[in-house]
Amino acid sequence: MRKIAFFVLLNISFSFAGDVSLLSKARNYFDVLPEVFPSDNNTLTPEKIKLGKMLFYEKRISIDGTTSCAKCHPITLYGTDGLEKSRGNFSKENPRNAPTIFNAAGQISQHWRGDRKDVEDQAKRSVLGKGSFGAPSYQWVEEKLRSIKGYVSLFKEAFPEDKNPVNIDNFAKAIGAWERTLSTPSRFDEFLKGHVDALTEKEKRGLDKFISIGCASCHNGALLGGNSYQKFGIYEPYWKYTKSKSIDKGRYNVTKKKEDMYVFKVPQLRNVALTPPYFHDGSVKDLKKAIWIMGKVQLGKDLSKQDVEDIYSFLKSLNGRLSEDITTLPTLPIE
Amino acid sequence: MRKIAFFVLLNISFSFAGDVSLLSKARNYFDVLPEVFPSDNNTLTPEKIKLGKMLFYEKRISIDGTTSCAKCHPITLYGTDGLEKSRGNFSKENPRNAPTIFNAAGQISQHWRGDRKDVEDQAKRSVLGKGSFGAPSYQWVEEKLRSIKGYVSLFKEAFPEDKNPVNIDNFAKAIGAWERTLSTPSRFDEFLKGHVDALTEKEKRGLDKFISIGCASCHNGALLGGNSYQKFGIYEPYWKYTKSKSIDKGRYNVTKKKEDMYVFKVPQLRNVALTPPYFHDGSVKDLKKAIWIMGKVQLGKDLSKQDVEDIYSFLKSLNGRLSEDITTLPTLPIE
Repeated sequence: MRKIAFFVLLNISFSFAGDVSLLSKARNYFDVLPEVFPSDNNTLTPEKIKLGKMLFYEKRISIDGTTSCAKCHPITLYGTDGLEKSRGNFSKENPRNAPTIFNAAGQISQHWRGDRKDVEDQAKRSVLGKGSFGAPSYQWVEEKLRSIKGYVSLFKEAFPEDKNPVNIDNFAKAIGAWERTLSTPSRFDEFLKGHVDALTEKEKRGLDKFISIGCASCHNGALLGGNSYQKFGIYEPYWKYTKSKSIDKGRYNVTKKKEDMYVFKVPQLRNVALTPPYFHDGSVKDLKKAIWIMGKVQLGKDLSKQDVEDIYSFLKSLNGRLSEDITTLPTLPIE
Repeated sequence: MRKIAFFVLLNISFSFAGDVSLLSKARNYFDVLPEVFPSDNNTLTPEKIKLGKMLFYEKRISIDGTTSCAKCHPITLYGTDGLEKSRGNFSKENPRNAPTIFNAAGQISQHWRGDRKDVEDQAKRSVLGKGSFGAPSYQWVEEKLRSIKGYVSLFKEAFPEDKNPVNIDNFAKAIGAWERTLSTPSRFDEFLKGHVDALTEKEKRGLDKFISIGCASCHNGALLGGNSYQKFGIYEPYWKYTKSKSIDKGRYNVTKKKEDMYVFKVPQLRNVALTPPYFHDGSVKDLKKAIWIMGKVQLGKDLSKQDVEDIYSFLKSLNGRLSEDITTLPTLPIE
């Protein structure tokens, strides 16, 4: 009896020591998700956030009257659309997969190639995007908004200092403000805060491997990614394993610099298990396959089935909680 | 002083007598909106309603992956889409304007021509609609649903008696069950219950005119419409005043009966001020203009500006309250 008790005690101590060591290792790489993603250029106020949430669902400012931010980033599918490549106005296909907007504001830039400075810049330029809203001009959008009296009041409340508050920059600021609140903390944050029991043993094993195998060298920070650019396909070309229908040169087409060939922003991994399909072209549906491909082309490692399983399990601990505010729909002004 | 008091008292009594008479008149035509719209063929259970709400937002069962019930019936725009005619899969234009789904389950039938028996029939047949979901077959939809494990469990919970619960009829029943809960009571219901102060004087004047001018002879019941079929254009052809781009023969094209030429289901008027544009082809944007046209072509009356204003004011009292359940988004199973 005493023997058993001693064994159990030893086991707990061992497990506890392991947890503390893992926690300490994890804290070197990862941060607890912030409650909001603040900006120096866009103060978050309740009025701005409220307006931004409405504008996020506003499709009357698109050329076909069906395209809103929510079209490619529906909350019901965790801020993305489940398509390989999104379809905007008149069903036009976009060049790349729609990343989730949850926690997106915490990234160094927006879009796969990082060619949108921040969420405000992304929101503003989307309205003219040929594959997104397709509006003929910013003025056209502003006039659409001004024609709905309810919006004139809402913009005034959100931007009380402005004489002419209904303009495209305030539109972008309002949507940006809303997006800066889309933080989805998960059990992993509980773990990072010191509640080591917030993860299962399998998830902890996956976390340990995620670090030791090398994933965390790029997928780190509060978002486990979204904070650097990397070549996709360091050891082998990515298209050798994905089902890519065409080869995307990535940031090279933005910067025209040789070193940016096949370079993309490292995607964040928050809610990754909830937001298939994967990669810039949505060419892989299965997360386990995506993990294996990443090992192969980024780290030159042929991950075992068990490694993939464990990492997959850890990634699921990044599935976040959606606040009531995120899941509550606004109603939009009609006149 | 006594004189003034007497005058005030008289005025109140007069107004009160007027209210009571108006209330009594109104009760001859209208009913309080039910909390839900029950069905003999589709028992409402919390599990079915929960599943139906999810399926309402499910676009992965459409041929282009972007079309869900919510595409043409977004809650943010009070259950309709603000377009003259809706756009379904690959942006295909539908033949008619999308009526709101709020309170729609309370109608005698669905669609402008009444060629969908009930909300279940509408939901089922929409998935094969060329202009809506565009799915190649019911089987295709069923397989899509079965491929998402989360749905298999949810269908089992919603239809515990069924051995093979993931099928198109249960899909339709679940969505129908959800739609049967989309009741949006308004101040007008408070009035009908006897709280005569729930309407303003202008709204009461509008209600009185709505009855006396003849609108209520078709727009009656709990939904102020949706319970009969009528020819659109009794005194004059409707297209003389609308901006209709083509002439729609209405139910004639469904029944091939001569007496159904230009006949449509009388639209309900709940939330009418929130759901422009108007008529089967969305040809009129302005509700006041729509009211005037109705007087002209249905009643042979040239309504004065004041009459239109008063009726317009009354119709706004039908703007309904959306329950928390209506405005809360579900998240959908991913695998």
